[in-house]
Amino acid sequence: MLELSSPITREAVVALDRGDALSPLRHHFDLPQGLLYFDGNSLGPLLHASRQRVAETLQQHWGQDLIQSWNRHGWIDLPRRVGARVARLIGAEPDEVVIADSTSINLFKLLAAALDLRPGRSVILSQPSQFPTDLYMAQGLAELRQPQPQLRLVESDNLISALDSDVAVVSLSHVDFKTGERADLRRITRAAHQHGALVLWDLSHSAGAMEIGLSRAEADLAVGCTYKFLNGGPGSPAYVYVARRHQERAQSPLWGWFGHRDPFAFDTHYMPAPGIDRFQCGTPPILSLVAVDAALDIFDQVELAQLRQKSMMLGELLVALVEQQCSGRGLTLASPRDSKSRGSQVSLRHSAGYQIMQALIERGIVGDFRAPDVLRFGLTPLYQRFLDVWEAVEALRDILENRVWDHPRFQRRGVVT
Amino acid sequence: MLELSSPITREAVVALDRGDALSPLRHHFDLPQGLLYFDGNSLGPLLHASRQRVAETLQQHWGQDLIQSWNRHGWIDLPRRVGARVARLIGAEPDEVVIADSTSINLFKLLAAALDLRPGRSVILSQPSQFPTDLYMAQGLAELRQPQPQLRLVESDNLISALDSDVAVVSLSHVDFKTGERADLRRITRAAHQHGALVLWDLSHSAGAMEIGLSRAEADLAVGCTYKFLNGGPGSPAYVYVARRHQERAQSPLWGWFGHRDPFAFDTHYMPAPGIDRFQCGTPPILSLVAVDAALDIFDQVELAQLRQKSMMLGELLVALVEQQCSGRGLTLASPRDSKSRGSQVSLRHSAGYQIMQALIERGIVGDFRAPDVLRFGLTPLYQRFLDVWEAVEALRDILENRVWDHPRFQRRGVVT
Repeated sequence: MLELSSPITREAVVALDRGDALSPLRHHFDLPQGLLYFDGNSLGPLLHASRQRVAETLQQHWGQDLIQSWNRHGWIDLPRRVGARVARLIGAEPDEVVIADSTSINLFKLLAAALDLRPGRSVILSQPSQFPTDLYMAQGLAELRQPQPQLRLVESDNLISALDSDVAVVSLSHVDFKTGERADLRRITRAAHQHGALVLWDLSHSAGAMEIGLSRAEADLAVGCTYKFLNGGPGSPAYVYVARRHQERAQSPLWGWFGHRDPFAFDTHYMPAPGIDRFQCGTPPILSLVAVDAALDIFDQVELAQLRQKSMMLGELLVALVEQQCSGRGLTLASPRDSKSRGSQVSLRHSAGYQIMQALIERGIVGDFRAPDVLRFGLTPLYQRFLDVWEAVEALRDILENRVWDHPRFQRRGVVT
Repeated sequence: MLELSSPITREAVVALDRGDALSPLRHHFDLPQGLLYFDGNSLGPLLHASRQRVAETLQQHWGQDLIQSWNRHGWIDLPRRVGARVARLIGAEPDEVVIADSTSINLFKLLAAALDLRPGRSVILSQPSQFPTDLYMAQGLAELRQPQPQLRLVESDNLISALDSDVAVVSLSHVDFKTGERADLRRITRAAHQHGALVLWDLSHSAGAMEIGLSRAEADLAVGCTYKFLNGGPGSPAYVYVARRHQERAQSPLWGWFGHRDPFAFDTHYMPAPGIDRFQCGTPPILSLVAVDAALDIFDQVELAQLRQKSMMLGELLVALVEQQCSGRGLTLASPRDSKSRGSQVSLRHSAGYQIMQALIERGIVGDFRAPDVLRFGLTPLYQRFLDVWEAVEALRDILENRVWDHPRFQRRGVVT
């Protein structure tokens, strides 16, 4: 896809930016001067639209119209309206997605729903490399339910052969948070269905960076966060997808009043709302939710296929430049080599990965580190430039060549990034 | 407490405002011109501090420091730090409270924890008048657990006599959302303990308006929302209280990564964090959370006893004025007559309650309506004036005398307020 003659030069990279049809989108973001941001797969940056929308919600809506904003400014329908917008990005129907709670909570809801939908089956099949909260929520649910479901963890290569008639649900990340490996959503969904199992996809590391096509794949269930490639803001609320064919029988175990058929009737008995709304629970966090809504506007200006294409080019460039500039310096590729098997990130391994990432951050190149040795570089086609990749690899080369990271100020300590 | 000669005059009410030591606090709020707000028990108004803090968080923190804000601006500890501030307001120790999720989700966590702490007991004892989500969450949990717990609902007068050795946990609102009746937290807690049961208090309608004294009452468990008297903003995150003596054995059933002992170790197995932190779950919604944090500043300037005193005076004035100005017009008091038994609201009943509230709202007097016939007036001593009460009752008198509410424009339709 990326066709550049070898060796790749800075000029050739600048030419890629000149030819980039998405480059006008960058000015919608409030990016810090001089910072090259490769962590949009962890926390997407602020859009001007989100800042304006939150300010308006504070000042005009909450501030001036107070409680009446629930009706007057449509707060009450916001989880559903924003859900419908996310639906387009994950290839689902508008009435199949709603915003609610966190990804963790939504995993709990859908794992419980899946076990109910497959009575007599007791296995949740997953991978040890799954994002930890996905495993933890399954472990917690297993403790609570009787008979106790079993969490069966197998490596990705053995996943399909581990399917059997005990498996109620396969719980998987679409894109692995650490390596960026992209699962074949369609193939795994089909294989699970052949064994009578459902699949619950965690789209946190893919939504907003590529086409997902849940309906086309006949996917059953999915969750995802909105603060990575969707740029919704720190800890912004997550979403739930339930295929329409499962909605009537799928039930959330968390019977909150926002999931009730008629919340403002204040009935003493829970009656689930029809459709996807039953997967709401408590009162939604409006400030965080309007930030998500505003952040989604930019996706109206772009096709997901375009995003994916640029994302793959950014990844191919990064890998090619690392091979060209940093060979023999102890870096290995933790991500798949073929960009079709990668999500929107490139992960590298190095025994001094932590220190190297600290040295990069000191130079204003912000990726992140995942223990024990992974440097992650998120690729975000809405606002990243090809030249950012060139400069990041140049800095990486310099740090490695000069063992800059050996300096005591890069010694390891507890960090979040 | 309120001593005014009869009949109460406007001048006497103005004098109350002149003598009000809390009146300087009002200017910290961004209150709409000309609006008299009696719905702070549903959605508290915006504080200038919250608007500034959210703007700063958007612009300087998220916008400029991006992912590094988790450490640099202390986002990672925010649930705990804000929890410690709420602790002071509910009479708990700083390490007994954490901010997490919604009130609904937190009810689920603590009901499950309570059942685990009382093995062999299967009853959740509550009241039919409990806020609906409290009942729904218990019903949902009962469906999930085996052996199935039983939700036993009894009226408040029969509550203590319904305690027996089957009761694992009593789940109660401290202040009833509809009538404003205030439960005797200390007495009920003691009675439950005598029967070996725990009590889970929902403080949503009391925290921020009065002293609560959880530690003094030897309370076990509590939840509450931050968007009513705490003014945290629409759908702002809720809190969890677990008494220190229960923390080691109390376990959340929702094993999210933010409740893990070491979230950023990315272990595959869940290990609960020590103490209250295990009741966190997913990534916290930072924008909503900083709004809560800023909104709590004002409580540093006031004693809860002062707030309670003014709240009671506001309530007594409202009741006395309704009796003086509106007698014979079909209004009855839905709240207890004795202000010591009331929370920070006065509820009235009228067969045309919905239309009357609509007519009041049209005049800029915003209370709310709860089916079938309750008009609620929230009393919020941080920013309300005694004159607001006078003017609200004057408007109510006029509406009733002239049957203004009989006009077709006030006919009933679905609403949230």
